Amino acid sequence: MEYPSKLIEEAVNEMARLPGIGKKTALRLVLHLVKEKEDKTILLTSALSTLRANIKFCSTCHTIADESQCTICASNRRDHSIVCVVEESKDVMAIENTSQYFGVYHVLGGVISPMNGIGPSELKIDSLFSRLASSDDVIKEVILGLSPTMEGDTTAFYLNKKLSSFPIKISSIARGIPMGGDLEYADEITLGRSITGRTLFQ
Amino acid sequence: MEYPSKLIEEAVNEMARLPGIGKKTALRLVLHLVKEKEDKTILLTSALSTLRANIKFCSTCHTIADESQCTICASNRRDHSIVCVVEESKDVMAIENTSQYFGVYHVLGGVISPMNGIGPSELKIDSLFSRLASSDDVIKEVILGLSPTMEGDTTAFYLNKKLSSFPIKISSIARGIPMGGDLEYADEITLGRSITGRTLFQ
Repeated sequence: MEYPSKLIEEAVNEMARLPGIGKKTALRLVLHLVKEKEDKTILLTSALSTLRANIKFCSTCHTIADESQCTICASNRRDHSIVCVVEESKDVMAIENTSQYFGVYHVLGGVISPMNGIGPSELKIDSLFSRLASSDDVIKEVILGLSPTMEGDTTAFYLNKKLSSFPIKISSIARGIPMGGDLEYADEITLGRSITGRTLFQ
Repeated sequence: MEYPSKLIEEAVNEMARLPGIGKKTALRLVLHLVKEKEDKTILLTSALSTLRANIKFCSTCHTIADESQCTICASNRRDHSIVCVVEESKDVMAIENTSQYFGVYHVLGGVISPMNGIGPSELKIDSLFSRLASSDDVIKEVILGLSPTMEGDTTAFYLNKKLSSFPIKISSIARGIPMGGDLEYADEITLGRSITGRTLFQ
């Protein structure tokens, strides 16, 4: 694609570095900004640069926060005896949106993936252990809320093994048929897990 | 959706104002920027603000340009006797990418759309007439390269009527079955136009 302007080309190239944004979409977004009033672009760029310059990570659970401690860890309404271990901050947001969980979190910052050179030391796993060790037995349960992928399962097995030395309950989020999912179209592994992991009818 | 941080929320809201970007996509993009090094965000925001602050429009054809005259209008390799009238700068880019057109352009900046309050005076139509009037008969042909929508057709009819007072040829880009398109799946209007506008077999 040839661009009529170097400025457009540079903006498109930068936009197209974002995940899921190709050159065509980037061009559409950039031309939209050119067509709109300049203050719209100023609002967007200042929101992004303010975010990147000032964003913090909670010193306890490592989720994205405005302060050095996130609102969840700082709250005394939350159950600090249950810690849900997740991969990313967006998983915290997803679980928070269910309004079904009242414990606290621990964000690993990824999953163990030898293919991508990510081992346990690249993740916030030591931080989880020291959090458990220094909790004075406040933490009673750790929920493993990792993705049901090869890497997620590997990480869950690793954590389960290492966590067994602590006097805590280790659980995992339920795997099964999603709401509205049709049994006929569920893959064998999901359907198999939904049978082995069956629960009492309530 | 609840966000763990005001900064994230503001950035997501600004991102989601872009066309085709919903809140979920905006969140994914913003979290990507947070995960990347800060200089990536700086590159993106500076490319966008530099673009918006310095972008110019060609004084002749009104397409996006780095200077007060675009490279196409400034080129003496282009055929200045043919002017292709299009809606937006992105149409210029699309036609340029075909490498099949060697004339110049005129960007209207939209199409006549009474529903959206856009009349001929909101577009660069007067500018087209004064360009034709002051061209000393250099311009021999005007190609109407507008979208085959209700508004595009209205604009084409309006221009055709008004341009008939000039001693020039008025043509329109061909309508028909697109390459790779199946006759069976073409809509009746397209197929009808492809028959009435049939060309000699080459």
